[in-house]
Amino acid sequence: MHKLVLVRHGESEWNKENRFTGWEDVELSEKGRAEAQKGGKALKTQGFRFEVAYTSVLKRAIHTLDYVLTEVDQVWLPVHKEWRLNERHYGGLQGLNKAETAAKHGEEQVKVWRRSYDTPPPAMAESDPKFPAKDPRYQGIPVAEIPRGESLKDTVARFLPLWTKTIAPQVKEGRKVLIVAHGNSLRALIQHLEGMTPEQIMEVNMPTGIPLCYELDENLKVLGKTFIGDPEEVKAAMAAVAAQGKAK
Amino acid sequence: MHKLVLVRHGESEWNKENRFTGWEDVELSEKGRAEAQKGGKALKTQGFRFEVAYTSVLKRAIHTLDYVLTEVDQVWLPVHKEWRLNERHYGGLQGLNKAETAAKHGEEQVKVWRRSYDTPPPAMAESDPKFPAKDPRYQGIPVAEIPRGESLKDTVARFLPLWTKTIAPQVKEGRKVLIVAHGNSLRALIQHLEGMTPEQIMEVNMPTGIPLCYELDENLKVLGKTFIGDPEEVKAAMAAVAAQGKAK
Repeated sequence: MHKLVLVRHGESEWNKENRFTGWEDVELSEKGRAEAQKGGKALKTQGFRFEVAYTSVLKRAIHTLDYVLTEVDQVWLPVHKEWRLNERHYGGLQGLNKAETAAKHGEEQVKVWRRSYDTPPPAMAESDPKFPAKDPRYQGIPVAEIPRGESLKDTVARFLPLWTKTIAPQVKEGRKVLIVAHGNSLRALIQHLEGMTPEQIMEVNMPTGIPLCYELDENLKVLGKTFIGDPEEVKAAMAAVAAQGKAK
Repeated sequence: MHKLVLVRHGESEWNKENRFTGWEDVELSEKGRAEAQKGGKALKTQGFRFEVAYTSVLKRAIHTLDYVLTEVDQVWLPVHKEWRLNERHYGGLQGLNKAETAAKHGEEQVKVWRRSYDTPPPAMAESDPKFPAKDPRYQGIPVAEIPRGESLKDTVARFLPLWTKTIAPQVKEGRKVLIVAHGNSLRALIQHLEGMTPEQIMEVNMPTGIPLCYELDENLKVLGKTFIGDPEEVKAAMAAVAAQGKAK
């Protein structure tokens, strides 16, 4: 039986302000750092140790991973930073306050953009100063492949090659893999692992900073899953995530 | 012309206590964290940006690199953690207070162990609980290759394959490489780059947390070198390092 541990990054400065973040490289908030440390302590308490870690190229995920590795005393672990684990690209919505967007476009439209499986947000223009091709970290990616604004379906499509070619083979070999990523890139993985429909995955809200351990068979079929931490906190965190995106 | 930037990790908890550290995985002190941040700020001020980073598998170097990358806003940079960049292995001396060792063995003997080019310290037994083969991070290394206690000559010998096969080719290709490591693994590199004799390299004390930028020609011959930071601080830091190892 194989194990795979997923952690969603803790609260960022923009989560706190309820803004669409996507590929914007926003730092963890103080609360987010505490969430990451707590998640790491929970893994340590239960004796988890890893052999390799994957994260995105966004600092809120990388720093969450750093805090977790510090807690489990595995700062030396090989870490691979992959753009395919980035958050969903929110296109023209990035940087906007969610409540403002909801007041402007209507709460229902915001919900569609955030929760619909295949409706992309308004596209970001290539001339936008924040178009990723201008950022050195994305230099290796053909411009045509760089997201302008993704639906969850698009996020799944760009995540899956990393899973299939790189991560899944290692899990199958029995390596202990830790993945620290974002709400929607983790949804992409969870949908794939659990064979969920679009409707089902849209209802999944991964709590922040609370590790989720999958137990998988030799073909990576899910045998079971367990959140690592206090059960009441798991429940409260999941409810809090579900409340996001409502106009305030 | 190529550039290569080296940073020696900031003060660790054991540097502060004047103990032989070597491969012991000791955390940065508060002062060490401040040194790392200051080094990062100096690089940022002078506009340094990197394409890849190398460090050891020891947390005082890894965390120094983390602080530097945070300051230059390149947390997303690919980081390779390599045991060949570890500090010199101090064998049976690891964990001992330097002043106590000096009082017991004599200041001259301590100086020989620390400063001699080819005299190894007393060897660590394979039965020692701290023998590296017992540590998961060293699982990939054939047991025969694992150091029991190194002279600086031994450190040079185990560092060089990483330089020759992996790092030097990237510098030659024009990639901007950052190396964050330890007093003696950096000595190994500096001796090689500058073609120094054993006597010469033994006099070199790389200051902690102050980046050193080499300018190299297409064959990696040294054209020049510059410390990045305040000149008075560079001088003071180098004097402080030279004072280590004396009985107090």
